[in-house]
Amino acid sequence: MTNPVSPSHGKLRPLGLSEVTLKPGFWQRRQDVNSSATLSHIEYWLEEAGWLPNFDGAVRNGREFADSEIYKFLEAMAWQLGNGPDPELEERFQKIVARVASAQEPDGYLNTNFGRPGQQPRYSDLEWGHELYCYGHLIQAAVARARTAGHDQLVDVAIRAADHVCDVFGPDGRTAVCGHAEIEPALVELYRVTGNRRYLDQAKLFVDRRGHQVLQDIEFGRAYFQDDVPIREAQVLRGHAVRAAYLAAGAVDVAVETGDTALLDAVARQWRNTVARRTYLTGGFGSRHQDEAFGDDFVLPPDRAYSETCAGIGSVMLAWRLLLAQGDPAYADLIERTLFNVIATSPSDDGTRFFYTNTLHQRVLGTEPPADQVVPRAASTLRAPWFSVSCCPTNLARTFAALSAYIATVSDEGLQIHQYAAASVRTGGIALEIDTDYPSDGRVTIRITDSPADPWTLTLRIPHWATEATLDGEPVRPGLAHLHRRFTPGDTVTLDLAVRPRLTAPDARIDAVRGCVAVERGPVVFCLESVDLPSGLGPDTLRLDAEAALTDRDGGVGITCRVVGEEDTAWPYSPGPAARPAGDPIAVTLRPYHNWASRGPSTMRVWLPLAG
Amino acid sequence: MTNPVSPSHGKLRPLGLSEVTLKPGFWQRRQDVNSSATLSHIEYWLEEAGWLPNFDGAVRNGREFADSEIYKFLEAMAWQLGNGPDPELEERFQKIVARVASAQEPDGYLNTNFGRPGQQPRYSDLEWGHELYCYGHLIQAAVARARTAGHDQLVDVAIRAADHVCDVFGPDGRTAVCGHAEIEPALVELYRVTGNRRYLDQAKLFVDRRGHQVLQDIEFGRAYFQDDVPIREAQVLRGHAVRAAYLAAGAVDVAVETGDTALLDAVARQWRNTVARRTYLTGGFGSRHQDEAFGDDFVLPPDRAYSETCAGIGSVMLAWRLLLAQGDPAYADLIERTLFNVIATSPSDDGTRFFYTNTLHQRVLGTEPPADQVVPRAASTLRAPWFSVSCCPTNLARTFAALSAYIATVSDEGLQIHQYAAASVRTGGIALEIDTDYPSDGRVTIRITDSPADPWTLTLRIPHWATEATLDGEPVRPGLAHLHRRFTPGDTVTLDLAVRPRLTAPDARIDAVRGCVAVERGPVVFCLESVDLPSGLGPDTLRLDAEAALTDRDGGVGITCRVVGEEDTAWPYSPGPAARPAGDPIAVTLRPYHNWASRGPSTMRVWLPLAG
Repeated sequence: MTNPVSPSHGKLRPLGLSEVTLKPGFWQRRQDVNSSATLSHIEYWLEEAGWLPNFDGAVRNGREFADSEIYKFLEAMAWQLGNGPDPELEERFQKIVARVASAQEPDGYLNTNFGRPGQQPRYSDLEWGHELYCYGHLIQAAVARARTAGHDQLVDVAIRAADHVCDVFGPDGRTAVCGHAEIEPALVELYRVTGNRRYLDQAKLFVDRRGHQVLQDIEFGRAYFQDDVPIREAQVLRGHAVRAAYLAAGAVDVAVETGDTALLDAVARQWRNTVARRTYLTGGFGSRHQDEAFGDDFVLPPDRAYSETCAGIGSVMLAWRLLLAQGDPAYADLIERTLFNVIATSPSDDGTRFFYTNTLHQRVLGTEPPADQVVPRAASTLRAPWFSVSCCPTNLARTFAALSAYIATVSDEGLQIHQYAAASVRTGGIALEIDTDYPSDGRVTIRITDSPADPWTLTLRIPHWATEATLDGEPVRPGLAHLHRRFTPGDTVTLDLAVRPRLTAPDARIDAVRGCVAVERGPVVFCLESVDLPSGLGPDTLRLDAEAALTDRDGGVGITCRVVGEEDTAWPYSPGPAARPAGDPIAVTLRPYHNWASRGPSTMRVWLPLAG
Repeated sequence: MTNPVSPSHGKLRPLGLSEVTLKPGFWQRRQDVNSSATLSHIEYWLEEAGWLPNFDGAVRNGREFADSEIYKFLEAMAWQLGNGPDPELEERFQKIVARVASAQEPDGYLNTNFGRPGQQPRYSDLEWGHELYCYGHLIQAAVARARTAGHDQLVDVAIRAADHVCDVFGPDGRTAVCGHAEIEPALVELYRVTGNRRYLDQAKLFVDRRGHQVLQDIEFGRAYFQDDVPIREAQVLRGHAVRAAYLAAGAVDVAVETGDTALLDAVARQWRNTVARRTYLTGGFGSRHQDEAFGDDFVLPPDRAYSETCAGIGSVMLAWRLLLAQGDPAYADLIERTLFNVIATSPSDDGTRFFYTNTLHQRVLGTEPPADQVVPRAASTLRAPWFSVSCCPTNLARTFAALSAYIATVSDEGLQIHQYAAASVRTGGIALEIDTDYPSDGRVTIRITDSPADPWTLTLRIPHWATEATLDGEPVRPGLAHLHRRFTPGDTVTLDLAVRPRLTAPDARIDAVRGCVAVERGPVVFCLESVDLPSGLGPDTLRLDAEAALTDRDGGVGITCRVVGEEDTAWPYSPGPAARPAGDPIAVTLRPYHNWASRGPSTMRVWLPLAG
């Protein structure tokens, strides 16, 4: 299958990139920018920062995990080449693969940061060294290549590295895991590609070892790398959000391939608890800057939210695997939310700048870093061209290149549509055209262009927020809508998800946004930006009038606010509680959060305090 | 003068430790625990952790700044010896001084972490190396010694180190500063002790150099060590809170000794803005864990508040200097608030465990670390015996030992009382007894036991919250109350500060506590702890009924709350806003925040959401 994640079992089966083609619309625009601009931008920076030259034997540049960015870039190129031929890109791909291959040791070891003269010995710092993590991304790139182009030099390199890992860390080897999970899903995927059971066994070993304090303790505690509690016993995702999501994804892969229902249920339980208590309205994971980690339950501050772009990608990786395994539309609900509000938020329109973190409240006007400047990962208040830790651009690139894989699946019963985007789908005897302006508009038209003669079921996800949706004019409820019938070419199904602006209130336990509401419209979270306000007013000086109607206005959402005065006081605490008089009403337009800071520096809020 | 901070100019003049003696009460109890338990506890750990043996030439243990803990311990012992003779303590003091002196190089250089075989060269890492910071604490210890015992070996060591610093970093030397301010106030104090102007000039040079990007940029940005903006231009304290406070304290010292009104005004302005926008209700400084730093204006989350104990101490150092220079009672107001709610909160009742950070909201039951365990600095949710970065215990020890210095001052007009504690004061021809159960009770009785024949002015600070205070039965307003008269021995003045529980509301710009109030009583912030609630209820499940009366109850404050149900949902955001029905009223007792977690693990809130 030409797609990421190909389980041998599960409720749903994924479709390959060759089976789903995006058509003009919200996501094709982003996929096009990715292939036409982001890939070149990344390649420029990988050379410029010296991370690619590391493979040529240059003096080592970058952080411990710099190798992984080259691998994620290779994976992105491999998926992109899977979307259609591109000889020039193919040539760039092969050149980089050759440089990578030249750095591999005879025994399969491959890392530019360890083991050479003047460097620390191999595997001498599993907590922070990221050697197995880097193999993970190498293997993922090779899997993408094998699925889209066949067995080539990159696949050879990855197999030699994987065999080396199994030799060193296998059942008779060193009882250890990597500080950053990633090799776990990669090894299962390599098993799926090669059929070599050794890789699956090794992945299972890594999943089962973690949580038993096999890593040294660190200042952030062992929860940081999920080595605090065995994954079968954990109740919720915790610690470093990207590590947590990658590990859980690998555990699902292991569970599915080994038929381990208990392990699958354990991860599903952790996912449910994480979504119920530790997830931002945007779908974002991670509320702490210090350790890029989940906070305690319901600690979801909007200002300095971390919500790392890569954690959003990890969340999609995890939810997609759970969806394939179990079919619950809640997984696709979170994927949709995360795609529209984390993954779409990170890149600039031109695909050459990125948010590393995705705050929900910007209080101070940021400054846009110059195009030639590398910034510390979370230090930029606006999108930046490159980071000293630059995991997010390459992670986005591989995600956008493979995006069509997340639209639909098949099963013995028929075909399921999970995400709404203009696309052509052709798989088995079924072909259909999906046309929509979603998420601007809630109408989705599905036209059957080819169908088997026998009846089959077309299943449509009705998003959890779509409480007024209709299917061919009949009301449908959130969840799954099934159309079981004999389809003939030319048949049309019309879904109307009734996309309208709405107010959303937080759970009372989320202290940080008490007394606030957010505005959503379909799957899109909206925000209030200073560039949309009259001079002298900022997002922090307004209170939303919840009695006034929400309207569609100028491509945004119109709301009514009251202006509150800001009185400077010597001490910001006073006898209370005191009622604050509401000011004059003003009309304000909110814009999609994923577009924020696209019009220059701006202050911004997602959560709006209520008037009165 | 036997006290910390002896400016040669200023509106008020400090009193020495020999002039003010604490009597039984809130602060004497803590000073006694400090001398009887904390000093020995610290000495044990300095040996156990290997930080003292570093001076004997042992393999280096601890972080870059470990030397400074020995110096702060010496300073604490020096002040304690200034409170009264203690031959056994004196002997321990001299033994440690001898070990420190033995590690000093012939040219005055003294640091156990740099310059020896196998170590990095001297001054090769000014951003993180803390060499000048360590000298700062060495000099402070020597100043304490010189003022309480005279010129001895420690003073010699410090002078040689200071001369070495002036040689290396003087006007013709290296144009650099230390990543952590501290040497600045220390050099001015050494000037005050020795009269050697060279130290003052060097301090001024350090203060003026900083802010001009003389340090390398770091991931946290140069604001971390206040090297972003010159101190004369800055508007507010920013970056690492301890560094910011120490630097500002040094700048006040330089300004006062050089008559630099512009510099003094600049620091006073930054202090006002910091208090108005970046200070917790407790007086705590610093809202970020990542870089132990101030956040943006009004970003004061109660959960994971950093409010480092040492930042509270830095705040007292700064406010005390500004008070002496300018006399504004607002400085003493913040000192009081910080003493009762940060500095009194950190140590356990027995003085052998400490909070490094002081959160205002504990959501999850913590675990008490074993007595023999070193914990990462901010990782402990309860008080811990020692930290891998253990700045707070030694900093507290030197503060408690010199605490009586902050009670009162004199001027040409008379005597001023800034903090209310049971104490005897004797200075010049004036002697008086202060008797009070403050802060439990608001009544303070001042009995004159000796007085010059001429009239003089007794000035009393009326705290900003004391809106119903009376002085000898007459109403007085917050600020300063002056009694100008001819006093005779036996005269008594009675101040009643009307300590009663009250509700306090936050500025509307502090998003993190919207819809909440806190309860204060006099200078003491109260909190709601799970150990005071019926089983099954936690602080997060209650809403304060603001209509119900607050009462004094069982040594705490009685309030009425409504219980709110917690409904588990799959997604913590729902159509809104929705009114939540108030549950049954229950009576709840709040306890002083500074005592929290004294009765075992507990969850806790300072800010209580309002019912309705």
